[in-house]
Amino acid sequence: MDIGSVAFDFASVRARLAEGADPVALVAESCRRASAVADAGIFTALTPPETALENALRLAAEARAGRDLPLLGLTFSVKDNIHVAGMVTTSNCPVFAIDPQESAPTVTALEQAGAVLIGKNTMDQFATGLNGTRSPDPLCRNAVDPVYIPGGSSSGSAVAVARDIVSFALGSDTGGSGRVPAACNGVVGVKPTIGLVSMRGLVFNSRFFDCVPVFARSVADGAEILRLIAGFDPLDPWSRTDAGAIDLKPLPPASARLAVPRADQLRFFGDAASKAAFAANLAALRGLGHELVEIDFAPFEEAGRLVFQSAMVAERLVDYGAVVAERPEGVHPAVRAAIEPGLSYSARDAFEALYRMRELKRVAEIALADVAALVVPTVPTIFTIDEMLAEPIARNTIMGTYTYFVNPMDLCAVATPGAPRADGLPSSVSFVGLAGRDGVVAGLAAGFERTMAGALKQPSAGLRRIRD
Amino acid sequence: MDIGSVAFDFASVRARLAEGADPVALVAESCRRASAVADAGIFTALTPPETALENALRLAAEARAGRDLPLLGLTFSVKDNIHVAGMVTTSNCPVFAIDPQESAPTVTALEQAGAVLIGKNTMDQFATGLNGTRSPDPLCRNAVDPVYIPGGSSSGSAVAVARDIVSFALGSDTGGSGRVPAACNGVVGVKPTIGLVSMRGLVFNSRFFDCVPVFARSVADGAEILRLIAGFDPLDPWSRTDAGAIDLKPLPPASARLAVPRADQLRFFGDAASKAAFAANLAALRGLGHELVEIDFAPFEEAGRLVFQSAMVAERLVDYGAVVAERPEGVHPAVRAAIEPGLSYSARDAFEALYRMRELKRVAEIALADVAALVVPTVPTIFTIDEMLAEPIARNTIMGTYTYFVNPMDLCAVATPGAPRADGLPSSVSFVGLAGRDGVVAGLAAGFERTMAGALKQPSAGLRRIRD
Repeated sequence: MDIGSVAFDFASVRARLAEGADPVALVAESCRRASAVADAGIFTALTPPETALENALRLAAEARAGRDLPLLGLTFSVKDNIHVAGMVTTSNCPVFAIDPQESAPTVTALEQAGAVLIGKNTMDQFATGLNGTRSPDPLCRNAVDPVYIPGGSSSGSAVAVARDIVSFALGSDTGGSGRVPAACNGVVGVKPTIGLVSMRGLVFNSRFFDCVPVFARSVADGAEILRLIAGFDPLDPWSRTDAGAIDLKPLPPASARLAVPRADQLRFFGDAASKAAFAANLAALRGLGHELVEIDFAPFEEAGRLVFQSAMVAERLVDYGAVVAERPEGVHPAVRAAIEPGLSYSARDAFEALYRMRELKRVAEIALADVAALVVPTVPTIFTIDEMLAEPIARNTIMGTYTYFVNPMDLCAVATPGAPRADGLPSSVSFVGLAGRDGVVAGLAAGFERTMAGALKQPSAGLRRIRD
Repeated sequence: MDIGSVAFDFASVRARLAEGADPVALVAESCRRASAVADAGIFTALTPPETALENALRLAAEARAGRDLPLLGLTFSVKDNIHVAGMVTTSNCPVFAIDPQESAPTVTALEQAGAVLIGKNTMDQFATGLNGTRSPDPLCRNAVDPVYIPGGSSSGSAVAVARDIVSFALGSDTGGSGRVPAACNGVVGVKPTIGLVSMRGLVFNSRFFDCVPVFARSVADGAEILRLIAGFDPLDPWSRTDAGAIDLKPLPPASARLAVPRADQLRFFGDAASKAAFAANLAALRGLGHELVEIDFAPFEEAGRLVFQSAMVAERLVDYGAVVAERPEGVHPAVRAAIEPGLSYSARDAFEALYRMRELKRVAEIALADVAALVVPTVPTIFTIDEMLAEPIARNTIMGTYTYFVNPMDLCAVATPGAPRADGLPSSVSFVGLAGRDGVVAGLAAGFERTMAGALKQPSAGLRRIRD
């Protein structure tokens, strides 16, 4: 058996295990692939291979002894703002490093289910960015075409999955960090309802908006991991007390009513390939028997602006304010530019932003009451790394056009690869649902994924994009 | 039949109606009693008697035609921060007067159920205060002994019920405004779970903490009104989507575990009569078969301080900031002193206060998980009007010792008259429960009320209190 060529999606790994493959060898191969890209800006730190192998050996022995380990043979990585005992949490800001006493409960749950952590992923510093370039060198690069941004802020997590180094990865998502890099690299991003997954052990960007998403090669893989990490955590004040009651199993396919933004409100910023791919994706949804109904996207755009253009940005000062004030030279300039405006807002401004957020949440509840989900392109376009560095604020904001609104409106989402763009880059569709409809959006995404028949699952490097 | 001597609790009114009393005559008597105290600082405005009688005649005709009007023959009043079409809403600050386009949906629901509104009640200006003296002359006075404060901020609403002018009244409650005046005047205050009753048509003090309580002569009366005004309101962004699913019927009596603050944490500020009454009230609860378990009250006190000693006070600037800045001479000095500190808080301060609030809510959920309710004295003591005017800030804060924490921790409460104090003033117990347990706390309060056998329901004026 040629372990070196094993694909790391769950079905492939399990097929190999069923054929008698050694789970320890699979973990060793994951470590080998990670070491091979040690300088590619995907990982901030790797689990020492001897530790990973020790863990794999122990788990394999436990499995032979009859313990149920659903994730046996799978490896994963986590964004470097999630605590892992024994590893420093940097949030990609070395002067901010934290030495955590214990692992996040999400990490522990995955390890107890048999998965082996092989490293921590690079990210836009302080999870502040949607493009992946706000990070120390070497820059993380797009898995499909290294000229392009990987998307952020969970850049390394998405790329590690897309490059088949790990079977899945955890990130964090405030304004799209669990979906934009999934879209840029052609993998799935499962962004749960806020409060469904414990946030203990996460270095916060915004407590009101943060949640822990899963990156995986398929919707089924991502949904399986979500089921393992979801649940009420009494020690997390932001955990939903009804988290255990929310149905997370992807709903079986059925034709549904789906909302889409009014055609005149869709913006692709001149990217004809993106626009054409979204049209193809909608056609595929119609082909599945779904009915598409246009809705007014304006309140969603307004909700999105709350994330980066309101007093809500002052939330970032709670965790990062001291380091920005005292060690500004250690903070990326674009990240400083995103955090410092928070200093100018008053408490009254904060309350007014929160009130508006409540109102817009209700607007979303009404707008989406009689549809199964809202369908949007996950990203309107993509930029090369050079383009992003040339205009790092405005182009970063563009990347969040269809993701920013989701958390302020208390929605859940699954970002799924769609029809290939004309230039070979991935397209992506997000299925966005009301809080608690995680199983519904996962079911829609899984049905869509099946029609896409695995397109873009294999990296196809070097193709160029066409702009109109 | 001597209408002039009819008591206005629901059972008495309904007994008279069953004997053939004319509901119009009952409404006329309520108007007469209100007019008789027109200068007593209980009402800011009265419904013109001819309008009230017109409404009563129309309702009586509808009832004869077979329409179900559960509140037929009952009258009510509302605090003057609740909109009533055709009446100016002053919040007891004439320079702030608002001429509303429509009535609050709570008012409309009560009118549609057959009740007649006979006036609007005086209040601590901007609902900012717990004592009832922060209001233009003439000052509202305690219904039991006019030397004493009526409690606030819903002073007039509680006094109108206690003096048997109306059958029930609506107020607002941020830090105790629906419970403190109930305690001071010997009536019941039903403070619902936040989001259970629509807040449309309420001039806000704090959107995070505000709710609409009911004042009544008995727990059953208050709970009946709550059932009529509760429910999900899609037009109120703060309304709970599950409001319709919460059981509001007072739970039948049964022995229960009840939490009480640790004895060494109970503070009565030197008021021996209050302390003795609370001990008697606890003894009565034990006599009912309830088990009392002591809990740590410190986190509850901390949550209480969020209401008046944190960035949360800046919420008041949203509705009142302009008038405080532009017409300071029209604002009561003690109210200005409560609102202006909000100007000094930053957005970061606001978020930190909100985070702490979330944490303390979770602390309450854990502390109260295995008890039916927390039992506290509604107020630790009471002051004369002269005492309050001599030290208007510190003594106001004292009044909130056992009420401030309830809304920040997302709890519900019913304040119920207890054993008479040695000096003849009323005592009061609050049954405080987790969000959604409105029926549970009402049931406990109703059982307690029965053992108190109607003590203090009739005003006994002029007795003096003893202090140690």
